[in-house]
Amino acid sequence: MDRMIDEHGGNIDVARARHGGDGWIDLSTGINRCAYPIPPIPAEAWTMLPTAAAKARLCDVAANAYATTAAIVALPGAQAAIQLLPHLRSSGIARILGPTYQDYGRVLRAAGWRVEHVADPAALIGADLALVVNPNNPDGRHHDPADLLALVGQVGLLVVDESFADAVPHLSLAPQAGRDGLLVLRSFGKFYGLAGVRLGFALGSGPLIDRLAALAGPWPISGAAIEIGRAALADRAWAAATIDRLTREAPRLDALAGAAGWPLVGGTALFRLYRTPDAGAAQARLAGHRIWSRRFGYSSHWLRLGLPGDAAEWDRLAAALAD
Amino acid sequence: MDRMIDEHGGNIDVARARHGGDGWIDLSTGINRCAYPIPPIPAEAWTMLPTAAAKARLCDVAANAYATTAAIVALPGAQAAIQLLPHLRSSGIARILGPTYQDYGRVLRAAGWRVEHVADPAALIGADLALVVNPNNPDGRHHDPADLLALVGQVGLLVVDESFADAVPHLSLAPQAGRDGLLVLRSFGKFYGLAGVRLGFALGSGPLIDRLAALAGPWPISGAAIEIGRAALADRAWAAATIDRLTREAPRLDALAGAAGWPLVGGTALFRLYRTPDAGAAQARLAGHRIWSRRFGYSSHWLRLGLPGDAAEWDRLAAALAD
Repeated sequence: MDRMIDEHGGNIDVARARHGGDGWIDLSTGINRCAYPIPPIPAEAWTMLPTAAAKARLCDVAANAYATTAAIVALPGAQAAIQLLPHLRSSGIARILGPTYQDYGRVLRAAGWRVEHVADPAALIGADLALVVNPNNPDGRHHDPADLLALVGQVGLLVVDESFADAVPHLSLAPQAGRDGLLVLRSFGKFYGLAGVRLGFALGSGPLIDRLAALAGPWPISGAAIEIGRAALADRAWAAATIDRLTREAPRLDALAGAAGWPLVGGTALFRLYRTPDAGAAQARLAGHRIWSRRFGYSSHWLRLGLPGDAAEWDRLAAALAD
Repeated sequence: MDRMIDEHGGNIDVARARHGGDGWIDLSTGINRCAYPIPPIPAEAWTMLPTAAAKARLCDVAANAYATTAAIVALPGAQAAIQLLPHLRSSGIARILGPTYQDYGRVLRAAGWRVEHVADPAALIGADLALVVNPNNPDGRHHDPADLLALVGQVGLLVVDESFADAVPHLSLAPQAGRDGLLVLRSFGKFYGLAGVRLGFALGSGPLIDRLAALAGPWPISGAAIEIGRAALADRAWAAATIDRLTREAPRLDALAGAAGWPLVGGTALFRLYRTPDAGAAQARLAGHRIWSRRFGYSSHWLRLGLPGDAAEWDRLAAALAD
């Protein structure tokens, strides 16, 4: 069982195998459970290799959504950018502001980087590669863009993972992503609730993005990802309504958890982190109601919950927390 | 114009921009133009992160289709495996049996490998990484599996790209892919006509595939790719009928080209390579009929054509070649 703690969220098949039952509500991820509706996918998106022109149109829409003029490459998820990071430059010292998403350390270490975890942004200075998740997963810690910009040039490459920044555009460094020494990562699947599409973006200077694109190869994302991404990222009304909904509903989740004796540690619009008396017991309690949550190997108290989707999901979570 | 010669096939947007018109028939790739029908995609395939269980089910179906018990990892196309190859082991000397698909050399060189192109399989011996495409793209040259197996152990890692082997299973080393020092790559999109799905497989020993999977990360392929791949690879009747059709139609294309004065150089069931008096003129002639073909920077005579799809496409190609 313990080997599961450190695994990713989204391992709902493991929850099913362990606890049985159908109709699970997966709150173990920060993926929006009210997904953007899938547009019609033209046949050519399946049959043809995605063209350079189609990818460029997607990146144009993304640039507008992220309010940037930086160079952009579309990848199969922000995760794909993480996988490529170690190969962007010769291995050296990577410093990661944490605690945060643990794949950064795992991937860099596997590629020969020396990885140091630091708790203070100033301690990033001097690293060959510095990694900040803003706002952070899982605790929602966030940084003023100006403070992060001040690090550029004081580290070899500053990577800012904005996988959970869609609802807080004022925190985003995307508008400044074109400057040397800065790489901004964006997730598509989390905010749009379409993690299975496998789409994300890296924003940076022309040479940096060219290098990432060369590492990724000519056809990293599917034709369907291009079609879906274009439609969703162009729909600013949906984004605005979703930000509004998430911003209203996050405190509602905090209230339910608080009433259950789980105070808020922090969070983003897509997930909330609570301090429970015993994370294992708390996870098991929710699992008894077929609601899956996320634990962390480094804390015996923290439990992360994504926001439920429709009213029925909210009702089930409320009942489970009141149990 | 010349900078286009070395680019990939499938750049149909470039053809459109250059020659104008709609209704192009793209024969510049080796992608089957009679695609496997897209099955219904469940909503969860879009919304959820692909689970380990779903990936395992896909790989089980692939193992059966490829007649192997080797370890398998699903990747966003055989191209994705090519992109990862340089990072599988410390850079050294890579030898590529050619002429062949040029991305191997490009990707390995960019990652610091010394790349040598050789024309004789025996010249691969001693390389840290040796690459054979079987059957080969673009000339259809093929190798007896026993001859390739004899190279295992005489090179650091033997990579056999079987992107065009679906119609010639007797050539495949997939059944032997579990042995140390051998990596077999399979493309999904070409034979099934679904290149936009971005799906391919790497087959090898457990440790080798574990390493590739770690480089690729936990979610390299989409939920839709899993659903489509499972349905298509399980449909052995479709595969058998498609092999039968392609095997019958390839000589028909050879006859049309031959009558136009373009003798066959070689090919596979999915594409044919012809010797033309002037590849640039030949490509332009077909482009005048909105049929796109593939040239190669290293030959002023070679032109590669994929097999047309339905009867209307055959008629248009016949008219263009008779023009």
